[in-house]
Amino acid sequence: METIKQFELSKEYLESLRQGIEAENLEFIRESLDGVNVADVAAILDELSLDESIYVLRILPGQLAADILIELDDTTLFKVLKEMEEEEISSFIELMDSDDGADILNLLPEKEREDVISHFKDQIKSDQILELLRYEEDTAGGIMAKEYIRANKNWNVVQTINEIRRQAENVEKIYSIYVVNNRQQLLGRVSLKKIVLAAEDTRIEDIYDDEVVSVPTHMDQEHVAEIMRKYDLESVPVVNTKNKLVGRITVDDILDVIREEADEDIQAMSGISDTVDEYDSVIKLTKARLPWLMIGIVGGLLGAGFIGFFEEGLSKVTALAFFIPLITATGGNVGIQSSSLVVQSLANKSAFDDSLWTRFVKGLIVAIINGLILATFVFGVVVLFYHTEVAFALVVSIALFSVVLLSSFMGTFTPIVLDRFGINPALASGPFITTANDLIGLAVYFLVAMSLLNI
Amino acid sequence: METIKQFELSKEYLESLRQGIEAENLEFIRESLDGVNVADVAAILDELSLDESIYVLRILPGQLAADILIELDDTTLFKVLKEMEEEEISSFIELMDSDDGADILNLLPEKEREDVISHFKDQIKSDQILELLRYEEDTAGGIMAKEYIRANKNWNVVQTINEIRRQAENVEKIYSIYVVNNRQQLLGRVSLKKIVLAAEDTRIEDIYDDEVVSVPTHMDQEHVAEIMRKYDLESVPVVNTKNKLVGRITVDDILDVIREEADEDIQAMSGISDTVDEYDSVIKLTKARLPWLMIGIVGGLLGAGFIGFFEEGLSKVTALAFFIPLITATGGNVGIQSSSLVVQSLANKSAFDDSLWTRFVKGLIVAIINGLILATFVFGVVVLFYHTEVAFALVVSIALFSVVLLSSFMGTFTPIVLDRFGINPALASGPFITTANDLIGLAVYFLVAMSLLNI
Repeated sequence: METIKQFELSKEYLESLRQGIEAENLEFIRESLDGVNVADVAAILDELSLDESIYVLRILPGQLAADILIELDDTTLFKVLKEMEEEEISSFIELMDSDDGADILNLLPEKEREDVISHFKDQIKSDQILELLRYEEDTAGGIMAKEYIRANKNWNVVQTINEIRRQAENVEKIYSIYVVNNRQQLLGRVSLKKIVLAAEDTRIEDIYDDEVVSVPTHMDQEHVAEIMRKYDLESVPVVNTKNKLVGRITVDDILDVIREEADEDIQAMSGISDTVDEYDSVIKLTKARLPWLMIGIVGGLLGAGFIGFFEEGLSKVTALAFFIPLITATGGNVGIQSSSLVVQSLANKSAFDDSLWTRFVKGLIVAIINGLILATFVFGVVVLFYHTEVAFALVVSIALFSVVLLSSFMGTFTPIVLDRFGINPALASGPFITTANDLIGLAVYFLVAMSLLNI
Repeated sequence: METIKQFELSKEYLESLRQGIEAENLEFIRESLDGVNVADVAAILDELSLDESIYVLRILPGQLAADILIELDDTTLFKVLKEMEEEEISSFIELMDSDDGADILNLLPEKEREDVISHFKDQIKSDQILELLRYEEDTAGGIMAKEYIRANKNWNVVQTINEIRRQAENVEKIYSIYVVNNRQQLLGRVSLKKIVLAAEDTRIEDIYDDEVVSVPTHMDQEHVAEIMRKYDLESVPVVNTKNKLVGRITVDDILDVIREEADEDIQAMSGISDTVDEYDSVIKLTKARLPWLMIGIVGGLLGAGFIGFFEEGLSKVTALAFFIPLITATGGNVGIQSSSLVVQSLANKSAFDDSLWTRFVKGLIVAIINGLILATFVFGVVVLFYHTEVAFALVVSIALFSVVLLSSFMGTFTPIVLDRFGINPALASGPFITTANDLIGLAVYFLVAMSLLNI
């Protein structure tokens, strides 16, 4: 027996594989890769050179190569596709599930896409993929597959098993069999377990479950993921506006969606353009990071200009400069906390949504309590340890209190506004907003100081 | 037919339900909740008062009430359990899957847990749950269930279907049937589809797939999630050190794990103690946020003290104060970018891990390139627009360059060190580290200024 635990790739293994490729030793290569899970083979190909990868894909059996192809890293996949002829790509796509085939086509330029489609030999698969290409990529329609088992409510168990037999090759994993009426409208589902345990002449009508959660083609993929998580679904049927069953989304695709969405949020919060990771090239990493740093720099320069206005006051009361980092840092921290809470509740849309007004009032109360505690603490410390005048300590703590309130307000509203405009609200916890918060903080601080200290 | 799309809770519905509870109108309540998915009923109970929730749970059929119980929000669940007698809790747990039962027991204080266990009537379920309680909560053993279908390799298809029939009530969803030898060691898996399509006298030995991914009981749940995502698994068998099959993890549990881990990371990055959301009380929200803000405040006060050392220099060159926000903000931004990239690659442990040294060199090169570009830009702008001496502009840009390098270094190493000590590395992108970065930035800035400007 061979239990594939997680495959451990060693440099030695990779080196021996490379030598096998160099020597064009087909048998050795096939043997090395035998029993290795496609996801692991894909990880190996990601490490090989482009020529080596394509060589391996071409000498493996077509179905295996197609399965590996869809598991490749997007960057590698893109390069591989660029090297292949349209006809070759089309033959690989015909061996894939419709949703994976559509994903591959979506990576190609429009002209090439049409060429690839023109080479399809399997009319049914071709129609299925063309249908999928019509949906937006990040909707239920865009991630669903056309492979699923459908049973008419008038069938009996034997007819259903025959349908499963007919589709066995196409539908890799059967979770539920979807039950439809003569107009192909979704009525419910019946589990394979029930089919196994029922007598052969049992009619589907008598055993199916009419409580089925379905999603419409236009639903956002993030929302689909949330529904599947909430209702513990391993697959969900997709229906059009007339409730006609048009596809199925399986949970393995949703796992990818959830990971991508979480990564996107974290990257937006950290000021990194998406789709890079530590293993990318230095140039790609630099490009992904520089623009966001530049935003911070421009903000910092504007801040410098702004403080410059108060040069005279500053030269009289040098101590004003001491507390600049305190003010800007607190503004940033409060802003990020507020916006992250909003982003989180936007993602997990709860059944009962508090109104905007309720949230605003609640956020304000939390900000006032936190602001008062922090300002009092700072006032005490400044008076006791920094030997400044009481008036000066008052300036710092009033400014701090105002900054907590303003940043909380900004942090709450920015993500809501971004979300309304269809922009990822997690950007509100990123460098753009912290930079804006810095400037607001400085403005409040110096205006309070100028007016209270008469400088 | 009734298709449950996502259930929309209206205030009217909730109000009518409340009136039904008030009037103790059993029939009306049962009718109102009929056909509503358990996850939605749980969301309704989360909104009702504690007495109302318990009343509803008690009048519903036991199995339904148990299913609802495990879907409750942790806060509600905890309160409900506190109100119930040990005997009642034990009867609910006996109706649950073993993993859910163990989760409930884990919420109880140790004394009460033993009382509940002593009331168990079903010896098998009781043994299963006691076994699960022995594993750490966030490992494969802690999240697995004891409900799964196991077939001996010597059985034929009919024997296997009989086993499925025997277990049908216990095992809600059958994804795969796990194949074991006489010593209960995992040999492989066979899909229900294959069982359906095989002749009755086919031996399991002849149709099972020996390439099965399994996980050991002690594997971290985050790692299990990553494996299930990578290999597109809907369930994974759990084995002990002797490769004996001891449990099964299903993908619906993993969806929760992935969401929790992502939420935890985002909360760590934003400086919020975990397990709060916007819907929590003002006091809970304040408590979750205040400690992290206090860290920033203490850092800011230390920064103020630090700048105070340079008061004399600052009073000579007031312009030094102008660029404090530029320096601290850039340090923060670079640090968060670096740490987020590391956190991401720690989470998605790739097959080929670059060595620490490779990552360090790469991070350094990216930092040098970004640092040079930013410093040059700032030098130009300061000379052209801020009318300062060239020496001063040089101070700002040299300090900026050094801060980019240092923050990148801190941002790369802090999460790695935290991870080694078993602490969530996402904390490295949070307020604690940005505060440290602020202080380092200030130190570099003023030390460079003092030495180059001779003040």
